[in-house]
Amino acid sequence: MFITLAGIVERLGGELVGDGGIAVRQVATVEKALPDTITFLANERYLPHLKSTTAGAVIVGEALRGALVIPYIVAANPYSYFARVSALLNPEPEAAPGFHPSAVIHPTAVIGEGVEIGPCAVIEEGVVIAAHVRIGAGCYIGAHSSIGEHGHLYANVTIYKQCSIGVRTIIHSGVVIGADGFGIAMDEGRWLKIPQIGGVSIGDDVEIGANTTIDRGAIEDTVIEDGVKLDNQIQIAHNVHIGAHTAIAACVGIAGSSRVGRYCRIGGASGIAGHLSISDQVEISAHTLVTKSITEPGTYTGAYPFEVNRDWRRNAASLRNLAELTERVRALEKALELRKKGKQ
Amino acid sequence: MFITLAGIVERLGGELVGDGGIAVRQVATVEKALPDTITFLANERYLPHLKSTTAGAVIVGEALRGALVIPYIVAANPYSYFARVSALLNPEPEAAPGFHPSAVIHPTAVIGEGVEIGPCAVIEEGVVIAAHVRIGAGCYIGAHSSIGEHGHLYANVTIYKQCSIGVRTIIHSGVVIGADGFGIAMDEGRWLKIPQIGGVSIGDDVEIGANTTIDRGAIEDTVIEDGVKLDNQIQIAHNVHIGAHTAIAACVGIAGSSRVGRYCRIGGASGIAGHLSISDQVEISAHTLVTKSITEPGTYTGAYPFEVNRDWRRNAASLRNLAELTERVRALEKALELRKKGKQ
Amino acid sequence: MFITLAGIVERLGGELVGDGGIAVRQVATVEKALPDTITFLANERYLPHLKSTTAGAVIVGEALRGALVIPYIVAANPYSYFARVSALLNPEPEAAPGFHPSAVIHPTAVIGEGVEIGPCAVIEEGVVIAAHVRIGAGCYIGAHSSIGEHGHLYANVTIYKQCSIGVRTIIHSGVVIGADGFGIAMDEGRWLKIPQIGGVSIGDDVEIGANTTIDRGAIEDTVIEDGVKLDNQIQIAHNVHIGAHTAIAACVGIAGSSRVGRYCRIGGASGIAGHLSISDQVEISAHTLVTKSITEPGTYTGAYPFEVNRDWRRNAASLRNLAELTERVRALEKALELRKKGKQ
Repeated sequence: MFITLAGIVERLGGELVGDGGIAVRQVATVEKALPDTITFLANERYLPHLKSTTAGAVIVGEALRGALVIPYIVAANPYSYFARVSALLNPEPEAAPGFHPSAVIHPTAVIGEGVEIGPCAVIEEGVVIAAHVRIGAGCYIGAHSSIGEHGHLYANVTIYKQCSIGVRTIIHSGVVIGADGFGIAMDEGRWLKIPQIGGVSIGDDVEIGANTTIDRGAIEDTVIEDGVKLDNQIQIAHNVHIGAHTAIAACVGIAGSSRVGRYCRIGGASGIAGHLSISDQVEISAHTLVTKSITEPGTYTGAYPFEVNRDWRRNAASLRNLAELTERVRALEKALELRKKGKQ
Repeated sequence: MFITLAGIVERLGGELVGDGGIAVRQVATVEKALPDTITFLANERYLPHLKSTTAGAVIVGEALRGALVIPYIVAANPYSYFARVSALLNPEPEAAPGFHPSAVIHPTAVIGEGVEIGPCAVIEEGVVIAAHVRIGAGCYIGAHSSIGEHGHLYANVTIYKQCSIGVRTIIHSGVVIGADGFGIAMDEGRWLKIPQIGGVSIGDDVEIGANTTIDRGAIEDTVIEDGVKLDNQIQIAHNVHIGAHTAIAACVGIAGSSRVGRYCRIGGASGIAGHLSISDQVEISAHTLVTKSITEPGTYTGAYPFEVNRDWRRNAASLRNLAELTERVRALEKALELRKKGKQ
Repeated sequence: MFITLAGIVERLGGELVGDGGIAVRQVATVEKALPDTITFLANERYLPHLKSTTAGAVIVGEALRGALVIPYIVAANPYSYFARVSALLNPEPEAAPGFHPSAVIHPTAVIGEGVEIGPCAVIEEGVVIAAHVRIGAGCYIGAHSSIGEHGHLYANVTIYKQCSIGVRTIIHSGVVIGADGFGIAMDEGRWLKIPQIGGVSIGDDVEIGANTTIDRGAIEDTVIEDGVKLDNQIQIAHNVHIGAHTAIAACVGIAGSSRVGRYCRIGGASGIAGHLSISDQVEISAHTLVTKSITEPGTYTGAYPFEVNRDWRRNAASLRNLAELTERVRALEKALELRKKGKQ
């Protein structure tokens, strides 16, 4: 598919500088762009590459206006503009309506029009699948769960019973939604299982990365609000509540009953302990463990700074004596103070 | 299903204060309880809610006796009592005996009575499945593995060959048991694979959370003893041995050949390095890396305290010079000492 | 299968000391070896066991020559020698050619000779599967992906469209290759999805552990070079490039567009932030977050040293004031210096 630069700005806005008749068929990186592609400036570090790019056109911010010889589109937010151009050139395939004969669909399931169900998928009793949903091969949808319109489950997704998924939600392979939360009670030397009778409620326009797990609630539901974006291998425990439009990078774990606000950004492999509350617009750095509630927007960090192993050994050994070192400094301050006083 | 308060104490013990004829049909949280539900005091922080709860009854400990106007049951351990009440009201569904016609069951497999095998499940040669086991859709059980009575595998569980699972063990979706351990040897610039010829041995009453992986042993078995509870996305490497009744939170990794004792509690996203031994009743805090064996019960911690990013930057920068700072303090102590001596 | 010690050294080299007619049928650990097994000295700590071992023979390094009474083979690298002996005694099963009738294979797929495709596997349009590949039950191979000769996918592996896998590559259950990278752009309060139009390119002789995820590239491919060994539950983000023969332990996360060199070793649960470059032969310790590019070979570490919780509390509290403590030491140094000067 080709689209002219004039056609792009007609649809998406922005200001075109250069020949609007030039047509592109794909997006590309600055370094490897062909003449029939359009690129963008993702990162200041790529600025030198822009001089030598062979792209047909480039999307830039206001600051670069006039600095380029090839055609360019000036956009207020070049990255989101690029996302829109790429979506134009790479439209999501529509569902190919129909059920593969190997799919196992319970007669009580309610399936909307235009739904595609892949090979070996299993749809249990009372499931509701809205129009234009795509269910990949090998997916399992437990009893009385529902998927909203235009949802897309890639192959081998597992959804337990009584989970509700909103519209246009994308779920990648290996995701497990609605497994039992980790609820156990010690009783005379044995762990008793606490039945996990809540469900999972997932909003609209959510995306869930591969092998992420979202447990069902202990009593009430685990909740993921609209527009939340979850990367791969995230663990969301029972009764967690994630506010709308929060984005969470891979390998994060959020412990039971914690609430994360709206528009938060949580870095990779960080963790949030249980029963905490994180306010809106909080950014958590990678590899940070949050052990107390956070009431103010801002950036919070707790990763050990990495070093050459030899230096780490010395500093880490000193860290084990840090409280004592603090005492020694206090003693020194006192000694100096005393003698100063003594002199007076 | 309804059960009267008198019926509960008749079955489970405890002391009822109030009208035993009141019937409840479900458990509930303190905040959202309806009159036909029973709640419990999970956490001191919910005490204020207890005054205004609309629950039909509540389970409490001895300390709250007399503080309530609604009917209550006094239990020695309110949380485990609650677990038992919830199990009464929410019994696990029994297996629905029978094999789905799309399941692929090797003729040499030995299947006990009352077993349920879901769609597209695959049972290989020589597998032994005891009575009343439930095998979910899409599960794969490798050759010569076995599942004990009343085991429950949710959909899309994978068990490799020659793994043994005890009775009443629950395995959630996406779990992989018996994949090859990470055994490699460097040889003239290439990694050689070490065949992983051990199996996995899992005891009775174990529960394994979604997407957890337990590797087979290199030579002998990887062992999970009775009553161990594993949360989601845990990685258990080859030849690890987990003692009975140990509970491990999500995202923990335990490296090869380490032994964890009985009744340990391991916090989320912590790690245990290889070839270590952890004694019984050890508690490891979240995000802690254990790098040496632990011989005494107790709580062990190693997470970097999180801070506002600005403070973290300053402290982390100082941490890189901590060994040097320690030297400087020593020099100061020496200088003061010398001059003190000089004065004498 | 039995093989004599003479037969072993004939095939694999090394120097035999003792009766070459002794035959072994399996490898074993030093502690539990039977007379018809061969063991090796994995670790100096097992040296005492060697005196009492009941093994039929043992593989050792040059240093132990003459210290043993049972037959032994002296090898330059006992561990890799052991790997080769174990591979002799435990050959990988060959593919059992044929397609299970429940497999769903698109008519345009090109399948080589001797290929085995298990039950309920799904092979999409235009897939190319080379000779002697084994595809386990429930695997999904997306359109136009390819698997090189002698590849082995265990049950329930998911490969998205347009991914390329080299020869002799082993992929364990639950692995997801080619899911969308985490590419989102904030636009007026909503996240826009950036189409992920790159693929994944995986070299020869790679092994990928259970439940590991490797995302497709945003524009160009994510690349895993030849001989890379990945343990379980690793997350490789879009456009990461892993150099040949690098070994990565479980639970590691590598963020988008980072490049890791050749012959690196990355410890468990460590992380590499995005857009970094790690040179060849770098070793990263477990639980370390790499936040800057590494240009020199060496070992890099950043884990918080774990302690008894009481000690950790005191030291971690002091750590929050470390920058201030550094200032206090500077003030002390200045005070001493000043007075020293004052005295002169």
